[in-house]
Amino acid sequence: MKKIAIIGISGYSGLELLRLLHSHQEVQIVSVYGTSSVGSKLTDLFPKLQAFPEYADLTIQAFSSEAIMAAADLVFFATPAGIAAQYAADFIAADFPVIDLSGDFRLQDPAQYEKWYGKTAQHAALLPKTDYILADFDQPKQTYISNPGCYATATLLSLAPLYQSDLIQYDSVIIDAKSGLSGAGKKLSDASHFVNANENVSLYKLNQHQHIPEIANQLLRWNAKAQPIQFSTSLIPVNRGIFVSTYAKLAAGVNFEQVLAAYQQTYAATYFVRVYPDGQLPDLHSVVGTNFTDIGLGYNTLTHTLTVVTVIDNLVKGAAGQAIQNMNHFFDFDEKAGLDLVPIY
Amino acid sequence: MKKIAIIGISGYSGLELLRLLHSHQEVQIVSVYGTSSVGSKLTDLFPKLQAFPEYADLTIQAFSSEAIMAAADLVFFATPAGIAAQYAADFIAADFPVIDLSGDFRLQDPAQYEKWYGKTAQHAALLPKTDYILADFDQPKQTYISNPGCYATATLLSLAPLYQSDLIQYDSVIIDAKSGLSGAGKKLSDASHFVNANENVSLYKLNQHQHIPEIANQLLRWNAKAQPIQFSTSLIPVNRGIFVSTYAKLAAGVNFEQVLAAYQQTYAATYFVRVYPDGQLPDLHSVVGTNFTDIGLGYNTLTHTLTVVTVIDNLVKGAAGQAIQNMNHFFDFDEKAGLDLVPIY
Amino acid sequence: MKKIAIIGISGYSGLELLRLLHSHQEVQIVSVYGTSSVGSKLTDLFPKLQAFPEYADLTIQAFSSEAIMAAADLVFFATPAGIAAQYAADFIAADFPVIDLSGDFRLQDPAQYEKWYGKTAQHAALLPKTDYILADFDQPKQTYISNPGCYATATLLSLAPLYQSDLIQYDSVIIDAKSGLSGAGKKLSDASHFVNANENVSLYKLNQHQHIPEIANQLLRWNAKAQPIQFSTSLIPVNRGIFVSTYAKLAAGVNFEQVLAAYQQTYAATYFVRVYPDGQLPDLHSVVGTNFTDIGLGYNTLTHTLTVVTVIDNLVKGAAGQAIQNMNHFFDFDEKAGLDLVPIY
Amino acid sequence: MKKIAIIGISGYSGLELLRLLHSHQEVQIVSVYGTSSVGSKLTDLFPKLQAFPEYADLTIQAFSSEAIMAAADLVFFATPAGIAAQYAADFIAADFPVIDLSGDFRLQDPAQYEKWYGKTAQHAALLPKTDYILADFDQPKQTYISNPGCYATATLLSLAPLYQSDLIQYDSVIIDAKSGLSGAGKKLSDASHFVNANENVSLYKLNQHQHIPEIANQLLRWNAKAQPIQFSTSLIPVNRGIFVSTYAKLAAGVNFEQVLAAYQQTYAATYFVRVYPDGQLPDLHSVVGTNFTDIGLGYNTLTHTLTVVTVIDNLVKGAAGQAIQNMNHFFDFDEKAGLDLVPIY
Repeated sequence: MKKIAIIGISGYSGLELLRLLHSHQEVQIVSVYGTSSVGSKLTDLFPKLQAFPEYADLTIQAFSSEAIMAAADLVFFATPAGIAAQYAADFIAADFPVIDLSGDFRLQDPAQYEKWYGKTAQHAALLPKTDYILADFDQPKQTYISNPGCYATATLLSLAPLYQSDLIQYDSVIIDAKSGLSGAGKKLSDASHFVNANENVSLYKLNQHQHIPEIANQLLRWNAKAQPIQFSTSLIPVNRGIFVSTYAKLAAGVNFEQVLAAYQQTYAATYFVRVYPDGQLPDLHSVVGTNFTDIGLGYNTLTHTLTVVTVIDNLVKGAAGQAIQNMNHFFDFDEKAGLDLVPIY
Repeated sequence: MKKIAIIGISGYSGLELLRLLHSHQEVQIVSVYGTSSVGSKLTDLFPKLQAFPEYADLTIQAFSSEAIMAAADLVFFATPAGIAAQYAADFIAADFPVIDLSGDFRLQDPAQYEKWYGKTAQHAALLPKTDYILADFDQPKQTYISNPGCYATATLLSLAPLYQSDLIQYDSVIIDAKSGLSGAGKKLSDASHFVNANENVSLYKLNQHQHIPEIANQLLRWNAKAQPIQFSTSLIPVNRGIFVSTYAKLAAGVNFEQVLAAYQQTYAATYFVRVYPDGQLPDLHSVVGTNFTDIGLGYNTLTHTLTVVTVIDNLVKGAAGQAIQNMNHFFDFDEKAGLDLVPIY
Repeated sequence: MKKIAIIGISGYSGLELLRLLHSHQEVQIVSVYGTSSVGSKLTDLFPKLQAFPEYADLTIQAFSSEAIMAAADLVFFATPAGIAAQYAADFIAADFPVIDLSGDFRLQDPAQYEKWYGKTAQHAALLPKTDYILADFDQPKQTYISNPGCYATATLLSLAPLYQSDLIQYDSVIIDAKSGLSGAGKKLSDASHFVNANENVSLYKLNQHQHIPEIANQLLRWNAKAQPIQFSTSLIPVNRGIFVSTYAKLAAGVNFEQVLAAYQQTYAATYFVRVYPDGQLPDLHSVVGTNFTDIGLGYNTLTHTLTVVTVIDNLVKGAAGQAIQNMNHFFDFDEKAGLDLVPIY
Repeated sequence: MKKIAIIGISGYSGLELLRLLHSHQEVQIVSVYGTSSVGSKLTDLFPKLQAFPEYADLTIQAFSSEAIMAAADLVFFATPAGIAAQYAADFIAADFPVIDLSGDFRLQDPAQYEKWYGKTAQHAALLPKTDYILADFDQPKQTYISNPGCYATATLLSLAPLYQSDLIQYDSVIIDAKSGLSGAGKKLSDASHFVNANENVSLYKLNQHQHIPEIANQLLRWNAKAQPIQFSTSLIPVNRGIFVSTYAKLAAGVNFEQVLAAYQQTYAATYFVRVYPDGQLPDLHSVVGTNFTDIGLGYNTLTHTLTVVTVIDNLVKGAAGQAIQNMNHFFDFDEKAGLDLVPIY
């Protein structure tokens, strides 16, 4: 039984970690950390957690790397950008396992971090000691795992076979991503006020979303021919879910059957990625509450354009679920442990 | 490992049974039955179930009591009213365990059934051979268990301490219940069309809802002084959840502290019912996705009126979850098996 | 052509005044006032107002009673509680027409104001110089009109015939009101965050809502036998709309036909209140976008309880619409001017 | 005062025509036609229309071209595809003004109609006697006006300056359109069931939507270099609104400033189309309830890709509003008559 600490328990990703780890037979949450609510009992802060004997004694503590390393076997950072960067050094120095759900270590180039996150990269020296791990493709080699962003996960799984098998014209890629409001976090803003967000759709951070370089970097790792991507993000009035429509022209000589086959092969042994038969497309309900990534494809013979529809639950595969999948790999648990869930209506 | 059959797999309750039983370590779904989709593979009908090896070989079969009894140890009826009444006889004759989520056996009086369900009670002779079991209060004695209705469950748990401990004026009870759209079932109707239901609230079946006699009967079992109840139901634009506001005047000489204590005592040992401290009220998010019933109370000294707010997830505690809780009791499993879930946002 | 000023233009009620007055042929908005955005052009603050030549020159100004009285013939206060109280004196001294949508002058008793609004009643001396005007019942006599609250409007119209014609047992009244999120205002809060409010229902301010004394006072004006009311308010995930379910036992000797007739008579000449035939109940869609109040009734012969369902659009009849109706009365315009609108889906 | 008849009054577009025409000073609805509800009083079918004296005497009649031409000056077809095709001949023969909101006359090529609508083009001979009129660009020359589709309107207004001024690479155009559920019509279907559509997004009719040829034809009229378009449509959980994200690479030598200037020039005199300044994008709330089309633009210097965000209310600009705008042009009314509306929250 591994002991787990969570930093940032009161955010959406922190609570989702708790929800999922609750059904994980091989781990136990032993301590939780926060900022605004230090000293509160977890069950007072979240009455909906009363009744669970597992959490009756958990009190939200102020951050202390020593205490964490003394109490736990692994820690999750479920914090806004800037926090993990500040506190990572001790864990890395001690080679203590960390899974970081924030964006702080996703960009290995400090200059890129400063540009897209608007913060000084004081953690520049630590960056090489961490691994960016897309759980369906990679296994951690170092103890500090940077967990991919929600949009990045959906987009990269949507595009992987095309780049890995060199099937498209790289200057033709258009990614139109839509996300539910939990993706924008718990922070209060006009954009997340119910009356504004409800019965509305808005496109935000056009050409400026911090997941753009994260995606572009990984595509380049897969294929050196990768070019800058056209990526946009819209808010849709749902709580959970990312829906990515990707468009690309096939490379000369490539046909749709090859593309479909490439997807099926790439994900044949990947339990949490499901490729739909030609003519079927997933919707958000296909995956809500689960760690699945569902992918459907269609081809337009008039425009020679491939459409790929990819859906994930942003709080599961896009955050806590993939983090647990990474943890399962790290500890050599069954990959499905804590994640063997049927989609919920 | 007990073997389970589900009749009515394609409805909301049927699928919810599958979702919850999926995480139950002591049972296995061995066969599924339906009407409109007989012959289809379950994973073709619900692409979101592909990838689960457990369901790869399940094909929707036409009803056959013999086949069910040969294949399974227990069967769930997750069917509209009228179906279980028609097919129950074989199971009852064979003393084969049934948990019936439909309304067919909830009213033990055939005349009452005919009045409120508008159907002939051809199953009148079978009624005494079945038990109506509110899982947080009763244990099955016979093998045919009639699972309570969603509104009835929330309302009865909301009122139980008041009637059992004789705390109120029985002619003063007002129950204002609100339900999400999944409570109205999968059948297409103008009322459930998105454009109608969205951004809307409507009160339906005023004084005519079929859960009224079910509630009234149980209240009478608890306290012979019970009187007819004033019960109304409104549709609110959410997928899941029942929110019941109950109002009653306290009996002469009863004060609020006694009432709060009665709730706390009644539910002290009842894991799935949680009573909130004075001043706190639950909302739907307190319970969505779980088998919990959360109850909060308040008292108005000017009107001498108690307000009880009770919330459940209509598909879990109001249907599939309570059915599994009943099954757990029947098979002497841990009551929480398959139901140890943290609320989902 | 009357000239109109609006204070608090950027709130929901302020903008709704603008939306409705835009189609009013007899008035013209000449100046707008705010706090946080003073100096901004209205069309910069609200890009959706660009293109309207009427608003091209409007800049949000800091409050000045002299400027307002110099520029306009009437001013609307669409401000949070506390603002009108502070600034009303000049207008009252000058007998300048004001319609105040805030709660500051709804309670004529300063002690009541202090208790329910939690503010010092420094405007106590001004209270008698203002009229609380329910537009479907009363006509302004003084120049300072206090516009009723949203819940109060729906509840009072729901109950008026019962109290005016003395038809019920006054200790039996239960009012279960539900409101969309715009009723909670534009202020950011956890409760109005999309992820919290969506797919949720919550009951708030139990027995503590500031509309309770406003309702109770008016009921007493209608019938001295009125008793304290049991009133509760729940948030439902829609943008607009109030849905009030009212329950009461009929007085001895009163039957449902008399009640229905009383409603029909009371509202026979009241264009903006519509009583439905027995058996029909309105829903929010019956009134959204309009100044109508729709009322449906039902009677339970077993519990001797009347159910009244009343719906309004909280931003129209519950705020800006009723304010314009009051203005129309004040200026002797056609009551329907600017308000002759068909409900919008 | 012109007399108006509406065929298909009970659909979303029919009711929206009534809602908008209600505020139009120059016209009067004199008769309404339907199929399923012939003989019903309009106010019985839609209780929310009671109280309006204008509609008290309207009864839904069975179709009769003679009766229509005797009673009215112009008729709107707000009917599903196939109806207008069947009944248009009499009106065309009589040169009687028709505005057809259905798809029957949008494709001038009978073969195209048969392919995309799946119906026999028995009205082939009539097609040349009708005009497809995008109200912001064209004026009717014949008396039978085919009103553009909702997606087509938003998409064409989004693309017009690019094609008219020859600013882009035509094989690079990607159109990702999202629509609220009212766009799918009142017909019951699994896809429009609340529980399915709520908290969901789905892409439907990939490469098969019947608005594709309608858009392509118009683009070719504007620029012979136009190529087949890549167009997809997703359902989002809102009642009203179309949100179109369009992507295109600029032609060699064209820069973003030229593009922005082209939009501003194209729409400088077009009241109902509003171009946002660089850096601002509209959302659905910018236009809901109105006839406006709001357009925002952004440019990505790394991918040389232009993003155009265009929003309309599908029931107003995408159906009834544009039809009234066309009627206003036809009768030489003020273009804004009946359409001078401020967006509603």
